[in-house]
Amino acid sequence: MSDSQHPSETSCFNDQRKKLQQRVDDILEAQIAGLPFADSALVAAMHHGALLGGKRLRPYLVYASGQLFSLELSSLDAPAAAIECIHAYSLIHDDLPAMDNDDLRRGQPTCHIKFGEANAILAGDALQTLAFSILADSAMSDVAGEDRLAMISELARASGVAGMCAGQALDLAAEGQPTDLAALELIHRHKTGALIRAAVRMGALAAGARGRAVLPLLDRYAEAIGLAFQVQDDILDVIGDTQTLGKRQGADQQLGKSTYPALLGLAGAQAKARDLYQEAVDALDQLAAQSYNTAPLLALARFIIERDS
Amino acid sequence: MSDSQHPSETSCFNDQRKKLQQRVDDILEAQIAGLPFADSALVAAMHHGALLGGKRLRPYLVYASGQLFSLELSSLDAPAAAIECIHAYSLIHDDLPAMDNDDLRRGQPTCHIKFGEANAILAGDALQTLAFSILADSAMSDVAGEDRLAMISELARASGVAGMCAGQALDLAAEGQPTDLAALELIHRHKTGALIRAAVRMGALAAGARGRAVLPLLDRYAEAIGLAFQVQDDILDVIGDTQTLGKRQGADQQLGKSTYPALLGLAGAQAKARDLYQEAVDALDQLAAQSYNTAPLLALARFIIERDS
Repeated sequence: MSDSQHPSETSCFNDQRKKLQQRVDDILEAQIAGLPFADSALVAAMHHGALLGGKRLRPYLVYASGQLFSLELSSLDAPAAAIECIHAYSLIHDDLPAMDNDDLRRGQPTCHIKFGEANAILAGDALQTLAFSILADSAMSDVAGEDRLAMISELARASGVAGMCAGQALDLAAEGQPTDLAALELIHRHKTGALIRAAVRMGALAAGARGRAVLPLLDRYAEAIGLAFQVQDDILDVIGDTQTLGKRQGADQQLGKSTYPALLGLAGAQAKARDLYQEAVDALDQLAAQSYNTAPLLALARFIIERDS
Repeated sequence: MSDSQHPSETSCFNDQRKKLQQRVDDILEAQIAGLPFADSALVAAMHHGALLGGKRLRPYLVYASGQLFSLELSSLDAPAAAIECIHAYSLIHDDLPAMDNDDLRRGQPTCHIKFGEANAILAGDALQTLAFSILADSAMSDVAGEDRLAMISELARASGVAGMCAGQALDLAAEGQPTDLAALELIHRHKTGALIRAAVRMGALAAGARGRAVLPLLDRYAEAIGLAFQVQDDILDVIGDTQTLGKRQGADQQLGKSTYPALLGLAGAQAKARDLYQEAVDALDQLAAQSYNTAPLLALARFIIERDS
């Protein structure tokens, strides 16, 4: 498998990414428009948190993974929207004054700045609930009940104390503490890695891949790009600018958070991102050898380490 | 059906209630002990929130409702524990400074007082997730996959913007505002009523009662006792004392929250509680006429309007 891409491939990936971004945005719009109390600050805060923009990497991964098994996009809409609801809720809560105390996210005021803390807490809570509602209730032709349950189980595992919540707790506990590479990796594997892994797994689970040998390979891919995503985030926190990032450049440093560039130097962090990319490519090569079409997953891995925001 | 109970019936109910209380506490203990990061403040905060005591009314309702259909208790453990996780998470978040700002709950410091706000927010988040994990993953012999999904759907509907989260948002928005009886009822039907209704429905859904005529009768019962529970709470906020209640007596009045005694007078509120009890009894009478054993549900209705804490 080639390590380089033609400009036309990159452009094709960006078109596809934007198409899926729009697709999941439309689903989230419809889900939120269908909620009771449509005029309330609570629902407005949920809308703000869920539809503020964002790269929609997790939905993309659900779609790309499900397409390995030739699943229709319509059968993947529910897990794609559900995982984005979990991600959106986590951002709202992470930004709260008691947590990271961020006032800017994706170039906009954060949820608690715009709607107050109480509404932000509740909007996060309700977005988490909405994720499980969507998985339990949405039409998913071709998806068996047992596979739906497997996706619910997967999403819950990745979101709770085995995943994202633990990652945020570890991250907060590490603030201002000396943190070595192993501790930093433990944080990120939970805080962002678990949900990225769940996205890839849910696409496969929707296709009935429970227990199949393809899952460990997808795990390897997902764990590599999940960590690469965080390394690149840390790199951008050093070299990016606030306008492109849509959040305060240097915010991590101000919070005294440990980062890959701080531990490895900028060049070391960039090498780490490339190594992780190669790890992802190796896992995909094994899938491609089994005739899976891995191009969409490969393009995303590349995007993750090349993005500037 | 008689409106009075012999002392021996009350004593039998209390024994049964305590047995089921212990049963669900044991399950929650085991669930939390099985989590990763057992020594973390996050897991300690979850334990504090979930195992601080409490009447365990919702689990009791799950068991009592499932037993109408002769379901084994072991098939009801998962929904009983899951709904208590949702209830526990809601209490942790409701007590936060940005919400009701309570420092005392069940005679103990609230979660954020003991573990800090960040851990309290995360512990609530993770307890919500744990509820869905338990429903998706726990062994439930005799329960079909589709019925498990129906329970997940029910719990999510009752917890989110169609239920509890909306209730808390309405409650916060009503603080210090003139609130009439209809507005107060809207708050309570969402804030506490939805989850109580879900508890009763989940017990029946575990037994495969989806779409059956018994559900609307159970809804009537649940809606009546749900509201009666809140009316009695308001009465106790006036006539109870802090030591028995385990929370500050008069807290609602201090927050400028509207209450049934404030709108109806104490005697009017007590009459309202009795009317709601009678409504619950009427619904149970119709179930009893179909040979369902409604005694455990009846005993709980009585307990709700007679309790002093």
